[in-house]
Amino acid sequence: MDDVRFAVLGTGGIGRRTLEVSQHKDGLTAVAACDRNGVAVNHGGLDVDELLEATEGNIASGPQGGPEQSSGDEPRDSEPRDDVATDGGAAAATEGVKQHGDQAGVVASEQGRPTETPIDDVIAESDAIDAVLIALPNLEHDFIPRVAERFAEADYEGVLVDVLKRSRVIGMLDDREEQLTESGITFVCGAGATPGFLTGAAALAAQSFVEVEEVEIWWGVGLKSGYEDNRGTVREDIAHLDGYDIETAREMSEAEIEELIDDHDGVLEFHDMEHADDVLLERAGICDAEDVHVGGVLDVRSDEKPTTTTVSVTGTTFDGETGTNTFQLDDVTSMEANVNGPALGYLKAGVRNNRAGHYGVFGPADLMPGF
Amino acid sequence: MDDVRFAVLGTGGIGRRTLEVSQHKDGLTAVAACDRNGVAVNHGGLDVDELLEATEGNIASGPQGGPEQSSGDEPRDSEPRDDVATDGGAAAATEGVKQHGDQAGVVASEQGRPTETPIDDVIAESDAIDAVLIALPNLEHDFIPRVAERFAEADYEGVLVDVLKRSRVIGMLDDREEQLTESGITFVCGAGATPGFLTGAAALAAQSFVEVEEVEIWWGVGLKSGYEDNRGTVREDIAHLDGYDIETAREMSEAEIEELIDDHDGVLEFHDMEHADDVLLERAGICDAEDVHVGGVLDVRSDEKPTTTTVSVTGTTFDGETGTNTFQLDDVTSMEANVNGPALGYLKAGVRNNRAGHYGVFGPADLMPGF
Repeated sequence: MDDVRFAVLGTGGIGRRTLEVSQHKDGLTAVAACDRNGVAVNHGGLDVDELLEATEGNIASGPQGGPEQSSGDEPRDSEPRDDVATDGGAAAATEGVKQHGDQAGVVASEQGRPTETPIDDVIAESDAIDAVLIALPNLEHDFIPRVAERFAEADYEGVLVDVLKRSRVIGMLDDREEQLTESGITFVCGAGATPGFLTGAAALAAQSFVEVEEVEIWWGVGLKSGYEDNRGTVREDIAHLDGYDIETAREMSEAEIEELIDDHDGVLEFHDMEHADDVLLERAGICDAEDVHVGGVLDVRSDEKPTTTTVSVTGTTFDGETGTNTFQLDDVTSMEANVNGPALGYLKAGVRNNRAGHYGVFGPADLMPGF
Repeated sequence: MDDVRFAVLGTGGIGRRTLEVSQHKDGLTAVAACDRNGVAVNHGGLDVDELLEATEGNIASGPQGGPEQSSGDEPRDSEPRDDVATDGGAAAATEGVKQHGDQAGVVASEQGRPTETPIDDVIAESDAIDAVLIALPNLEHDFIPRVAERFAEADYEGVLVDVLKRSRVIGMLDDREEQLTESGITFVCGAGATPGFLTGAAALAAQSFVEVEEVEIWWGVGLKSGYEDNRGTVREDIAHLDGYDIETAREMSEAEIEELIDDHDGVLEFHDMEHADDVLLERAGICDAEDVHVGGVLDVRSDEKPTTTTVSVTGTTFDGETGTNTFQLDDVTSMEANVNGPALGYLKAGVRNNRAGHYGVFGPADLMPGF
């Protein structure tokens, strides 16, 4: 495949690390990055080291916990953001921008310039951009779908990738599929760790079977950088606990969250999370969404993973045996490593599809060989 | 994806089971099958049940042992076959045709008719065939590459899939890539269990890492149908043992093989086999071929797998940790299940690529999202 020129919207944890990881491989050139206050564009290739160094320390939302990734796909503020929310401004938002120094975020880089319309600025350059990683917190459920819409309105022909988590967002993207297809956009959704890496693993493991009965995705995350930097994501995860939902979690005070965490000795266990692995596996024909179960354990006080991240796929073979194939990630592989490699892998797969004229909405499992 | 019309060359173990397994899913229609003596074609779809029933018992080479698949990719006869060897005649050969009853093999089906040129007969119908699974023993290393050549000479535009094992065959296919591409052929090679299923799993597991240090593929096979039906493959596997090679294994008498197996109490263990996983992972940019190791244990006297089939991928993450991700197949999943699902999965992936205009030679890992 020829060189892939990509942009990153948002320079929080995922955005920064994607830029970093892309340098380890040939064929990926970062040409644009933006955050709330600034944008940097160089079609010959950004100086990633300089950009990362200049923006270091801008991750209030940090390397997040939760299910091995950190998009933050739901509101973190009690006040919903409205129309402005689809511009990188409100989007990359308070958590994703450097809060100290003379200048904040991308603007601190000698490659950056201030702007009030960072996403529009990237769209303006998008003729020369093959793929865009949307590494913004999904402040509202329809936030990322609305960003996609704006690219479509500008007749962008290329790839959009996100690492969203909530199942319901996939339907919102599907609602916009016609518009995306007409524009020539290949939208790869849920392309982080889970959904993403582990969804692909489930699709692969399913190939022993003619009928898949259950997919269980079980993740472990130990927050290397500690809990302080990850309050936003922990709040988001609390919404998945029994007796809590998005609204109640949003309204909790910091002290209430502290108390909850203390009650659990820093270890939160989640079951039956609303994770898009379910709809993404169903749309790829692997199994019914209701047969997919996602859960895991988050330890906010240790760097060690509290449990081994495992995908278990149970099914029946053509010769009538019922068995379980498993995929396990080494405990030493960080959530960050398991988001960013796959995100770039799916990005490249998206570009191959886009160049072949395959437009619309694709999940990770749609991009795998699948019986 | 629209319906995929496929043909199977050879109705030995893999050919028959592929026909059987394809019935479990929508979107796959078997339209042609052939063996040494006969061919059956129905563009509206073969009556697979009738065909399988009529040809039952034709598997002298049976559900094979060895590394989870059964293509038999090397000479099994001491006399090399020459020009005729690329026709299904000599190809599907003595082991793949029903040896009893009034009529042998496909001809025994009411859909079959006798022919002396089965492969040519399928080629003659290939305008209406999207994909062809080459389930023939690779009697000589260049046998399958030569079959591919014949399709290219006939300007076939579609997918060819094989389940070959030996590394050196990939190079022979690459030598013919220009011809295949000109014809419009997408050739997916090594698309069984290993190489194939497990190669894809290795490519997937590699995505945590920016540098892959080692891939270890370790298979276990217990021959359900016993040893008697699998003498050919056992002989082939013996060539991988220390102190043996293709020539010495070929020249052993049945008694000598029996003695060797007795000496091992029916359990043969293999290390550093020449398996195309190595070159297939290298060509996809996952790691160097020399860092791929394939081995396993074959128990010819038990239906239980003597060891759990496991893929271990060791690498370094972007943040400097070294870890090992693993993929394991349940012991109850048979070698047959682990060949045929993936073979059909890769076949469908091949068709998607072919329809997108991607021609040439592809390995399993080339068809995966890959960073």
